[in-house]
Amino acid sequence: MYPIQRCIGYSHDVTDLPAISPRRERTRERLLDAAAEVFARVGFGAASVEAIADAAGFTRGAFYSNFESKEALFLALIERQGRRHVAALEAAVARLDADVVRARHLNSDAIRSVLAAVTQGKVPESGWYLMNSEFELLAMRAPGIGAAWMAQQRAMRAELSGVLDRLLGGLGLRFTTDPAIAVELLLGAWAASARDASVAGEPEVAPEALEALVDLLITEA
Amino acid sequence: MYPIQRCIGYSHDVTDLPAISPRRERTRERLLDAAAEVFARVGFGAASVEAIADAAGFTRGAFYSNFESKEALFLALIERQGRRHVAALEAAVARLDADVVRARHLNSDAIRSVLAAVTQGKVPESGWYLMNSEFELLAMRAPGIGAAWMAQQRAMRAELSGVLDRLLGGLGLRFTTDPAIAVELLLGAWAASARDASVAGEPEVAPEALEALVDLLITEA
Repeated sequence: MYPIQRCIGYSHDVTDLPAISPRRERTRERLLDAAAEVFARVGFGAASVEAIADAAGFTRGAFYSNFESKEALFLALIERQGRRHVAALEAAVARLDADVVRARHLNSDAIRSVLAAVTQGKVPESGWYLMNSEFELLAMRAPGIGAAWMAQQRAMRAELSGVLDRLLGGLGLRFTTDPAIAVELLLGAWAASARDASVAGEPEVAPEALEALVDLLITEA
Repeated sequence: MYPIQRCIGYSHDVTDLPAISPRRERTRERLLDAAAEVFARVGFGAASVEAIADAAGFTRGAFYSNFESKEALFLALIERQGRRHVAALEAAVARLDADVVRARHLNSDAIRSVLAAVTQGKVPESGWYLMNSEFELLAMRAPGIGAAWMAQQRAMRAELSGVLDRLLGGLGLRFTTDPAIAVELLLGAWAASARDASVAGEPEVAPEALEALVDLLITEA
């Protein structure tokens, strides 16, 4: 139903994908950016294909030559977010390697950087949490979409677990529990804090619970 | 804007509340039950006051003589859920006291009972998670409602923290972190697991992450 096979790979090398012209890629990116803005503003249900195409400066026809449906676009949006998420985390890992060379000991700033990378791009004011809630509702009411989405999310979490596990090893640290479970708990705690901030109308996510969880989850190797 | 002062007390003694006739109480309960069903089926936005009144077997007028608005009814619904939640937890505590008398040691079944009590009434198939997501979206788009809801949720969590802290003490156990943070992490992990199950269309919440968190959060006193 959806091109989930392309989504779950999270390939960073565009040569792995079917050839897409740079122009077509720019069109897709503009449609994705416009959709993110429209979904956050009016909600997934109320966002028409016309409104999304219009916000991107394209016709309805251009939309459908790039995406099968509004749902397919949403999956592509989440896949893009996942790819950016993993890329941000890998960049954080690359930066931290220098820290490891300089000081081979438990570094709370390093842990905070990892945490920031895990939750990157998902701050309340970005509209991400709101959009995500919209898609959750859609997925809960339309099971076929939900299964594809969960497959995508689980693949992203598995990749995050691997990256974090290697990162901690390089810092002389380890998770106190299975890395996949640790990532599930970290993302869950982040989502709960982001939800509270979004609902209360607070601009910042309160860090206390996340920091307490990091202390429980990470120890010296 | 909302009768939040009445909500945040979570009083279990009806004599604390302004006198409400048993008949009026039954009407309110039927409207709340009907609303829960209608919200879960069509969503908060699409649920009309007429549809809720109709499902309960009442007129639109009866609705408005009991609730100021659909939003006020939703807060009352969440307040009722919170009251039931705390009552279930207190019942679990009462049952566990007998265990403490019989065997004064760490009891993983006891911990599982606590966990079941914390998450009671919030299984995916109940429609609760779906309805909660609807309200989250509403609250994120209408800040006045969000603030009232968060005040109510924080009061419920504070009550849960107190109950769990006393319970653990009675079992010779303690939280490894601040009880309020522990409850926030437990509820966050539960919500994340319930969300995954709801989105994937699975009937049961996977317990692994929650159990790992309980192991990290609870230790012998």
